[in-house]
Amino acid sequence: MFYLVGLGLSEETDITVKGLEIVRKASRVYLEAYTSILLVDKTVLESFYGRPVIVADREMVESNSDEILHNAATEDVAFLVVGDPFGATTHTDIVLRARELNIPVGTVPNASIMSGIGAAGLQLYNFGQTVSMVFFTDSWRPASFYDRIKENRSIGLHTLVLLDIKVKEQSLENMARGRKIYEPPRYMSVGTCSTQMLEIEEEKGEGVYGPGSLAIGAARVGGKTEKFVAGTLKELCDADDLLGPPLHSLVLLGRRTHELEHDYVRQFAVNQETWDRIWKADYQGKQ
Amino acid sequence: MFYLVGLGLSEETDITVKGLEIVRKASRVYLEAYTSILLVDKTVLESFYGRPVIVADREMVESNSDEILHNAATEDVAFLVVGDPFGATTHTDIVLRARELNIPVGTVPNASIMSGIGAAGLQLYNFGQTVSMVFFTDSWRPASFYDRIKENRSIGLHTLVLLDIKVKEQSLENMARGRKIYEPPRYMSVGTCSTQMLEIEEEKGEGVYGPGSLAIGAARVGGKTEKFVAGTLKELCDADDLLGPPLHSLVLLGRRTHELEHDYVRQFAVNQETWDRIWKADYQGKQ
Repeated sequence: MFYLVGLGLSEETDITVKGLEIVRKASRVYLEAYTSILLVDKTVLESFYGRPVIVADREMVESNSDEILHNAATEDVAFLVVGDPFGATTHTDIVLRARELNIPVGTVPNASIMSGIGAAGLQLYNFGQTVSMVFFTDSWRPASFYDRIKENRSIGLHTLVLLDIKVKEQSLENMARGRKIYEPPRYMSVGTCSTQMLEIEEEKGEGVYGPGSLAIGAARVGGKTEKFVAGTLKELCDADDLLGPPLHSLVLLGRRTHELEHDYVRQFAVNQETWDRIWKADYQGKQ
Repeated sequence: MFYLVGLGLSEETDITVKGLEIVRKASRVYLEAYTSILLVDKTVLESFYGRPVIVADREMVESNSDEILHNAATEDVAFLVVGDPFGATTHTDIVLRARELNIPVGTVPNASIMSGIGAAGLQLYNFGQTVSMVFFTDSWRPASFYDRIKENRSIGLHTLVLLDIKVKEQSLENMARGRKIYEPPRYMSVGTCSTQMLEIEEEKGEGVYGPGSLAIGAARVGGKTEKFVAGTLKELCDADDLLGPPLHSLVLLGRRTHELEHDYVRQFAVNQETWDRIWKADYQGKQ
């Protein structure tokens, strides 16, 4: 059987009891390590599981999935995914491939950032579609997130923004020369995300949001050092020191809010006076 | 410390290793048992945890939370929530109360239906706001879900519909007479939900959806007997036998879809020919 096992969001003990039983019994255990990361190293997982774990990079999963699925019709193979197996990214491709090969598939759900973000204190009911933010370069500044946020805000909904991570990436030069040398990993911060968002608003000028729009920066959601910082987008441009190390995410508020959310999120505000003033003017009682 | 511990969606082994450690060590363990249920009984949990569990009904949580929080500043108290602690319903109220009492709060995330529904094969990115469907009565047919679905569909998004559960409810007569006699639990099925949705569309006539709109019925998501049935809303009115026992949820598709989703969800179709024909006409390539 081929098992997709969610690992949750942060530490080795975030795996479920059901998931751990599968990992301990499987013939081979792969760790998908390019769409997200845990806050602990592979060695911590191996010592907790009491067995070796094979890191599966994008190339292996996307181009060589039959290697992962090898013999899974007769043996148990576990494929570990940070968060939920069908969460922040889908792994439907490898499941479809398994079905083609008549391999039975089991999944073990776990916390995903898309539900875990509820810990920031906003009702999950009122989130719209989720968007992704990639690192801008001089020549590549994809802004499709802007129209998505516009849609969400037009009907009053919050937007969860998932931030780029770059692991095992080659420089253009190394790629051109066919050298398998990889750059150090990079994780986008709330500060970079807020800055890029304001740059695109500046360019497009449609007033979808602005420097005074309220947002929440989230760091290490679900982990022991989980941290939320609430403020205006402008304030969040400079809040990385408060948030600390990766992973970060961001929520841009929609106008559909509840007084209880105000009270709850307020405790995370950079500046509670600013928070109260803008909340009252732009959010409170707006449906 | 006051811990909110997510139990995940179905069986006793869906708790995380971290959550189980807290449950085994805490002075008291409460189970919130009115917003959702696991697929196993309290006795199964007690035997798995090796300790008694106190059932917390709505009255206790909403009117008597200080009893739950008693001594939590000096002892560990665990409050178990099906799904994620901040998932399908929020428990921000009791957390705010704990903070007022200067009780430190910890949360242990877990799978929620709002992320677990990804197992149906639709990208979670493209879900809009979540709506709830309650049992209609002759005099009470709340239809606010209709406008929410309209908003989601206007921007191409899917809608997750969470279905009513009634546990520990009194009949009007017993309530009037002050008799603490409770009705047997009731769980809404996909068939009832689809029927109510079509009734409201019939009444409102705005064409937000119709009998031929595509949807997915989901049963026991994340459990060993998880089951999905895809079809038109009309087909889903009669699919309860295929889906089996509770809990059920429903997803109404938005037009923003991907070919991979077609292939994946198709395997669950009541009638693959109908599915393909409607998908091609109304969904494929629509952004």
